Amino acid sequence: MEAAIGIDFGGTTIKSGLVAGGNVLKRGTVVDTQKAGGLEDLLGALVGIVEELRGEGVAGVGVGLPGMVDANRGVVNQLTNVAGWNSVPLREILEKRTGLPVAIENDANAMAYGEWRHGAAKDGRHVICITLGTGVGGALILDGRLYRGATMGAGEVGHMSIDYHGLQGHYGNHGALEKYVGNQQITDRAFSRYAKKGMGRIREQCTPAALSEAARAGDEIALGLWEEVGYEIGVALSSAIWLVNPDTVVIGGGVAKAGELVFGPIRRTICSQTGRVFHEHLRIVEAQLGNDAGIIGNAALALEAAADAARNPVRSV
Amino acid sequence: MEAAIGIDFGGTTIKSGLVAGGNVLKRGTVVDTQKAGGLEDLLGALVGIVEELRGEGVAGVGVGLPGMVDANRGVVNQLTNVAGWNSVPLREILEKRTGLPVAIENDANAMAYGEWRHGAAKDGRHVICITLGTGVGGALILDGRLYRGATMGAGEVGHMSIDYHGLQGHYGNHGALEKYVGNQQITDRAFSRYAKKGMGRIREQCTPAALSEAARAGDEIALGLWEEVGYEIGVALSSAIWLVNPDTVVIGGGVAKAGELVFGPIRRTICSQTGRVFHEHLRIVEAQLGNDAGIIGNAALALEAAADAARNPVRSV
Repeated sequence: MEAAIGIDFGGTTIKSGLVAGGNVLKRGTVVDTQKAGGLEDLLGALVGIVEELRGEGVAGVGVGLPGMVDANRGVVNQLTNVAGWNSVPLREILEKRTGLPVAIENDANAMAYGEWRHGAAKDGRHVICITLGTGVGGALILDGRLYRGATMGAGEVGHMSIDYHGLQGHYGNHGALEKYVGNQQITDRAFSRYAKKGMGRIREQCTPAALSEAARAGDEIALGLWEEVGYEIGVALSSAIWLVNPDTVVIGGGVAKAGELVFGPIRRTICSQTGRVFHEHLRIVEAQLGNDAGIIGNAALALEAAADAARNPVRSV
Repeated sequence: MEAAIGIDFGGTTIKSGLVAGGNVLKRGTVVDTQKAGGLEDLLGALVGIVEELRGEGVAGVGVGLPGMVDANRGVVNQLTNVAGWNSVPLREILEKRTGLPVAIENDANAMAYGEWRHGAAKDGRHVICITLGTGVGGALILDGRLYRGATMGAGEVGHMSIDYHGLQGHYGNHGALEKYVGNQQITDRAFSRYAKKGMGRIREQCTPAALSEAARAGDEIALGLWEEVGYEIGVALSSAIWLVNPDTVVIGGGVAKAGELVFGPIRRTICSQTGRVFHEHLRIVEAQLGNDAGIIGNAALALEAAADAARNPVRSV
């Protein structure tokens, strides 16, 4: 079985692994992104990870990064929360320094690709993946291929509107889903709701994890809030489902750990707000690969790029 | 240049033409769908149209129908507003009776295909097409191919939500765009708004066409309503743009004839509610083919199917 190196370049840490058949065989040293230094130091760290993990039979390296990544041209246009990465031809740089074929990708796309190739969406052909965390990220697999869109921006379910007169998101977009169901927003809503009822809570008691625990113990406010959050996610997903008619929806990230508390209302909303042919065979499932989705997805993308290169040795840049 | 027959099978009339290079060379007799009779009569009418238009060098026949059409299997699962069409293997029937290769498609998909191959979206690779009429229809071209989705339902922009607590659409979906900007809804809104201001109008003075005329003459109520309608369409399109990141949006149908009255607020809304990379090179254009979009699109689909068949003579059914 062919192996590849997958690197999950996050705003906080860089995690990596040697992967074959969707399994992480060996892990690379974790690098602290913010402490590593500037662009040149981070490039050095990436080369170091490749040297640490490479061995015979490694077909290539895949790197997923948070921001605007032009996967076709192999260029990082800009990173979120990491300074100095503007128009960096990362693929070319790493290929020269390591001698291995390199693929680069947006992090949300890489995670979705991992879930599709080796995780929760394995049998899907049309997949919406969303990650519920600080923000709400997303990615699409359409017609059996990673779908990137005209400017590599596709899949932003978190910026879709659920209320045309609602709260404004980062881009001026009214009713942006992540302004309702981001980690911080859930915490804020719980905090003010407990306060209103005269049931003072500190913020640490209002995090999504704490609210899951409270809801499981029967807390009415927490239960009600999960219903609302699930409904809101369900409305945005219903709009996405009307548009791209998927066979699989994968939901991951911290908020998804609430399990049926949030999956229940999400499923009920989708079933009550879409046509039958849109939901009767639709699978709505939790992500399976957890923190390894990026590592596994990037390795899978590296293998795919290597196979493409073998079929078609001249690559357009 | 190769020619094909395009048939636009509507709930009211069946229009058809012999098409080459995106031009209608000859038109078939228009058939009244409701007066034609039952399934067998309509099949006979379709065969009659083919006989009327066929000539040497005709590569095939494309038929677009309003409803659930399984283009891959060639089966009409169900039609909207035409009884008796349940699980009809239309492709096979017409191929046997005419001896020509036949392609069948959903009508909205066929129109979008026409605009993409020969109309307003000619240079696009990722296209959202919407048609603003009694309802709001839509279709997608993604990665340079007609995108149908898991159950041939993709592109339903009119069912996407703009308000999670809003008016309910046909499928229980709150805030469904077409409950706000369908022809009837626009008329109703204008009618009650004039009444409230003590400016009685009959309903015929409140149609989208009449409202365009009134707005151009400076009528404040009509101008305000077009701003609102454009904003609402713009919010739904913004959600669609966040999800599939198109390079082209094509807008057609009767309501689009309001021109800049509705395109102005649609463009402003999209530019103010999506990220820059999503709209800076985005083309938002009016459909070009008008009533011929279906005829031209179905003929183009027939030519594509014929070319596919020539490349790969065994078709999976």
